[in-house]
Amino acid sequence: MTAEILSVGTELLMGQIANTDAQYISRRLAELGITIYRQATVGDNPARLREALTQALGRADLVITTGGLGPTEDDLTKETVAEVMGKTLVMHRPSYQRMVRWLEKVGRPLTDNNLKQAMLPEDAVVLDNVYGTAPGCIMERDGRAVAVLPGPPHELKAMFEGQLAPWLMQKSGVTIRSKFLHVFGIGESLLETMLKDLFHTEDPTLALYCSPGEVVCRVTSRADTDEEALKRIRPLEEEILSRVGDHFYGEGADLTINRAAFEALRARGQTVCFAESLTGGRLAASIVDCPGASDVLKESYITYCDEAKHRVLGVRQDTLDRFTCVSAQCAAEMAEGARRISKADWGVSTTGIAGPDGGTADTPVGTVFIGIAGPNGARGQGFRFAGDRDAVRLQAVKWACDILRKEIGKA
Amino acid sequence: MTAEILSVGTELLMGQIANTDAQYISRRLAELGITIYRQATVGDNPARLREALTQALGRADLVITTGGLGPTEDDLTKETVAEVMGKTLVMHRPSYQRMVRWLEKVGRPLTDNNLKQAMLPEDAVVLDNVYGTAPGCIMERDGRAVAVLPGPPHELKAMFEGQLAPWLMQKSGVTIRSKFLHVFGIGESLLETMLKDLFHTEDPTLALYCSPGEVVCRVTSRADTDEEALKRIRPLEEEILSRVGDHFYGEGADLTINRAAFEALRARGQTVCFAESLTGGRLAASIVDCPGASDVLKESYITYCDEAKHRVLGVRQDTLDRFTCVSAQCAAEMAEGARRISKADWGVSTTGIAGPDGGTADTPVGTVFIGIAGPNGARGQGFRFAGDRDAVRLQAVKWACDILRKEIGKA
Repeated sequence: MTAEILSVGTELLMGQIANTDAQYISRRLAELGITIYRQATVGDNPARLREALTQALGRADLVITTGGLGPTEDDLTKETVAEVMGKTLVMHRPSYQRMVRWLEKVGRPLTDNNLKQAMLPEDAVVLDNVYGTAPGCIMERDGRAVAVLPGPPHELKAMFEGQLAPWLMQKSGVTIRSKFLHVFGIGESLLETMLKDLFHTEDPTLALYCSPGEVVCRVTSRADTDEEALKRIRPLEEEILSRVGDHFYGEGADLTINRAAFEALRARGQTVCFAESLTGGRLAASIVDCPGASDVLKESYITYCDEAKHRVLGVRQDTLDRFTCVSAQCAAEMAEGARRISKADWGVSTTGIAGPDGGTADTPVGTVFIGIAGPNGARGQGFRFAGDRDAVRLQAVKWACDILRKEIGKA
Repeated sequence: MTAEILSVGTELLMGQIANTDAQYISRRLAELGITIYRQATVGDNPARLREALTQALGRADLVITTGGLGPTEDDLTKETVAEVMGKTLVMHRPSYQRMVRWLEKVGRPLTDNNLKQAMLPEDAVVLDNVYGTAPGCIMERDGRAVAVLPGPPHELKAMFEGQLAPWLMQKSGVTIRSKFLHVFGIGESLLETMLKDLFHTEDPTLALYCSPGEVVCRVTSRADTDEEALKRIRPLEEEILSRVGDHFYGEGADLTINRAAFEALRARGQTVCFAESLTGGRLAASIVDCPGASDVLKESYITYCDEAKHRVLGVRQDTLDRFTCVSAQCAAEMAEGARRISKADWGVSTTGIAGPDGGTADTPVGTVFIGIAGPNGARGQGFRFAGDRDAVRLQAVKWACDILRKEIGKA
């Protein structure tokens, strides 16, 4: 099955919001084994929507529209899709009643405009909206389908997961199973070279997703049963793991390197305390992002100036004088200090030059040292990251999490 | 002038990343008075790119492509655009030399693949890449233009601002001037009501951009000169400012509430120290995001557990016992403690329930107290934020920054 996404909304064309709906649907369709060749966005304009929809239906089996289901006169997605698909809208009583109850619950009045939201094609598959007044629907004709979804992300996600995904799975009649293997510290092109001979198989298939410092290997199989799909995935999975070694940090669709560090700590009942300079709290925040963070982080320190590194963390003045704060020595002492004052199992530090200013010939912008202190002592490690202030700091956070989860594994 | 955006990247079709490039360009083109009717995304597939590009060129004066300029064989955007535009690629020596220097600087080897990145059409306007190896370019033919930009957001933004935006301004021959007035703490629909009679003017125009807790009022005028445009903007600007009062926090395209707090501190030569619980470092990081942060933040504390609030910050045990840590009293003492131990001019704290667990009937998820301590004493203020863990923490950060910048203004 091939699909296209057609997003409707002038706010997208004006750049007021990012199209996270398209991203969400794309990711989920990929996981369901449905191929997307195109995404398009048009404004709240029936003529352009009609043109884009007609083109998309000429290429794909399924078109998913997002947005334009609101109560105002601008919102014309459902009406335009119905016109293109040759459907007539009629009042859908169950949706009307659901809307009345929903408005009562949130204490908002029912307006005439809302009535339009309960108008649906007679033969449509109706998709209930758990979080709003606008139902979605699936319209079918001549072996093609258009699924009409609301724009607000939480309404769309609930409708996709609860109703559209099951409908798609049933339609395709196969089980599609993916495993996501997360690899840190090998660049995209190097990893591609390392796994070169593993691409281009029919089933299971291998695809790489990349973001700075990280690559996700997606292994997907289609089979009659979940068990069979997993069985087919296993040999390729094992081959990948044997090649990437300890660069592999975990499995799962939503895993991130900070989450992996958090999970490693929690699995062992251990705690961490950070001593951050250039990352300025971002490293600690990446752990606190994870629900349950209080199990692994009790306190943490940001020491941005030298004086605070010395006074709060106990970094020796001699170290600062001889090596400066941008040094492996300082990073190690910062990590040690954080561990000592917090009594945490692990201390992890960051220090370096995020830019745009402050770089020198010897220590240019992007020079970063990460320190780690644990049961086997403390050490600092140097890096040179590319990119602007934000990119340098983000990479420092990710590498610090990677060093931590590796050390936890070794201890 | 009308434009379309054509994003190229299988990672977008697979939903690995959100298309923030398209959002960025859309917003900036709107500010420049260029109308966008369509955005489209295709994968790293020359045939589909060719089809989409040909269609787009049939409708718009300008097509901006993003992505597909990397060194690998998949990256074929420039080659495909050149083919459609009837251009031949030749080695562009200045870009080659720039690339060699850039790779030297970041300590990466020059590969054969990189050479392809320096191949450009002979008559193209070359757009230098400040942050990477891939130059962009503008190809023109028959009154239509295609601007080819790299995908990584920081590379794209620098190229857009430094080179494409000036080219577009020159091309359109009019001066378009916008002012961005930032408003915090008034919801979108309330602000819309407050400013209702100010919309729908021909020139200057008013548009609102919204994000949680924040609204930006964009006032735009087109005129022959910058001076004339600014003169036309002024009366509307003054009217808006008089209506929103101290909810207005500053002006500028890229201003954010954390940056406003940072600027307020720096303008007065003052410093801040945070005491964070639920925000877990994110508040400090939002200040450290700003280049020059070392002027205003020397150290900061994350005290996630009660014991650390007491030991590190000196919150009284009696306060924790009587009011719990989710209280105005605790927030005030945390802020006071941060100010005292750091000797900073201001102490600001956050404490509350970010969720998903930990809520009770009295203090449900989303309950947050923000404390501030300064020359006039300390106090705590309560909030109830909507949304998930991430949304609650983000709002806590923004409101803390807002409270800080307001207090600085009053002191």
